[in-house]
Amino acid sequence: MVVASAPAKVILFGEHFVVEDKFAIAAAINLRAKVFADFNDSNFISISSDINSPNTIKIPINMIISGDIHGYSPSITPLLLILHEFSFKHHLLDRGVDISIKSEIPMGAGLGSSAAVFVAFSAAILKLYNVKFNLYDVIELASKGESLAHGKPSGIDATISAFGGILLYRRSQGFNRLNVKFNAPIILGITPEHRSTADMVNKVLKLKYKYPSIFNLIYDANDKIVEEAINALISSDINRLGELLNISHGLLSSLGISTLNLERLIYAARNAGAYGAKVTGAGGGGAIIAISNESTVSSILKAINDNGGKAIISYISDYGVNVDECSN
Amino acid sequence: MVVASAPAKVILFGEHFVVEDKFAIAAAINLRAKVFADFNDSNFISISSDINSPNTIKIPINMIISGDIHGYSPSITPLLLILHEFSFKHHLLDRGVDISIKSEIPMGAGLGSSAAVFVAFSAAILKLYNVKFNLYDVIELASKGESLAHGKPSGIDATISAFGGILLYRRSQGFNRLNVKFNAPIILGITPEHRSTADMVNKVLKLKYKYPSIFNLIYDANDKIVEEAINALISSDINRLGELLNISHGLLSSLGISTLNLERLIYAARNAGAYGAKVTGAGGGGAIIAISNESTVSSILKAINDNGGKAIISYISDYGVNVDECSN
Repeated sequence: MVVASAPAKVILFGEHFVVEDKFAIAAAINLRAKVFADFNDSNFISISSDINSPNTIKIPINMIISGDIHGYSPSITPLLLILHEFSFKHHLLDRGVDISIKSEIPMGAGLGSSAAVFVAFSAAILKLYNVKFNLYDVIELASKGESLAHGKPSGIDATISAFGGILLYRRSQGFNRLNVKFNAPIILGITPEHRSTADMVNKVLKLKYKYPSIFNLIYDANDKIVEEAINALISSDINRLGELLNISHGLLSSLGISTLNLERLIYAARNAGAYGAKVTGAGGGGAIIAISNESTVSSILKAINDNGGKAIISYISDYGVNVDECSN
Repeated sequence: MVVASAPAKVILFGEHFVVEDKFAIAAAINLRAKVFADFNDSNFISISSDINSPNTIKIPINMIISGDIHGYSPSITPLLLILHEFSFKHHLLDRGVDISIKSEIPMGAGLGSSAAVFVAFSAAILKLYNVKFNLYDVIELASKGESLAHGKPSGIDATISAFGGILLYRRSQGFNRLNVKFNAPIILGITPEHRSTADMVNKVLKLKYKYPSIFNLIYDANDKIVEEAINALISSDINRLGELLNISHGLLSSLGISTLNLERLIYAARNAGAYGAKVTGAGGGGAIIAISNESTVSSILKAINDNGGKAIISYISDYGVNVDECSN
């Protein structure tokens, strides 16, 4: 039996701006999706998942190999596509597998929950079938799932989940790992609002193309924030990093992606002692992040919960996808 | 008997940015301060005011002439200084006067309530003593009161209150009247929060000097917003103007001057159908403005009142200070 796990991500700076080739900083956090996989004695792949409502599907291996994988739920089909790609590339999908998925990552909140599942799932399958692989192989396979789930993902989610740590990203330049140690708590506050990432991205772009002279300056300001944030991370200056989160949130608010529910959580965190707080991800709902020191964590968690959010404490996770064989 | 009145102002765009020689657009609105003045047969100036708690003070003319005007309340002393300046310049303060002040402008909310009183007060005194004067004389006299009340005022408040209409302002270039007609309702939402304008200005400048490379771009973005806003005003494009208010609010939020109470009113207005809404003035509390068409006014007013604000409907006022002799 194989167990693989992969972390959630938060975007610290630069969401939306990255779409127009600006810089973003993303980090893996210590909330993880886990995938257990083991061979069974059948010709079926069985997948059980605690995501959404718990359910189990069973599908014959030959249907996966032939690509006859549609008609399943949106959370299952991408996994079947990953298996199909795996079989296509490695010609190894010759034994039945029992797969079980458990995730502690809130879904639909811009925390890369689906990418973490796809990364852990891909690593588990590669490992179970004893394929030699590196992180890029995992990302490539996981990205097949991401493409199906999200249309045109930036690749940030799968990459950060595979690598862990803190990554600097720019579309035209790819990823660079920032070799910094950041130990302070990152508090998440999840709003109950639903939103579509694609809708939010399109809304922002529409506004940007309507007012290019204004937005070009705001987008340039994002890159200056990222520059300052790298310095603050290198020097572990949590106070500056908090101020930069606050400034960044204002710019994201000018793009039209904040909501009153997000603002409630942001001010709850700031007023409870956070160094700074901002929306993270696409906005229109989803999650905020706040950074604090250990002494104010409990009051910030309480303030977020008291203001309609679901608060979760997290830390940056230096390790990304992890896979092991268990002795049964 | 003389009656003078002068309007409140709202800053549509550019508050805080003006401090660093960027553009602002301010407008007079149809909330007015009124000053009634008439000679009496004594050697006293009597001032009664409905501002703060109603009260009446009586002070001998010779004390005003000699400048012995201290020890009165902060709302009265600037008026006595205006009278002292008037007597110094015109050598006319030789008869007792009864003065009565009534204002419909909310105080301490960044709406220029004190400047409107000073402007109306100055015009009333000049008129009562039959001095030939123009608007600049009124502004000069009123500004004495403003200096005492606010330290170093930009002069925006007294100027807009004297001239009325919509003014484009830049510190190094002074004022230019925008000859546009803007008929849509401007809805005010006042929060119960107290704040000091000077403290907010200093807080913003401190942040700007700490992160100049970021803030220089945000400040430049303000000027692009003002450019776009002038075009939107000229073409009466209320939809664009609303979007520009929203963008501007985000930038002001990045300067750190918004609060949860302000955000509540802003989202209440936007969600009730406003084209756009933003904080107006120094922030940290005070007022928001929202623009709408007539059909959504009542729901926006209700939404603001339901969310902890005091809602007031206003319109841009093309006329500024107004002074008349009444037949007694």
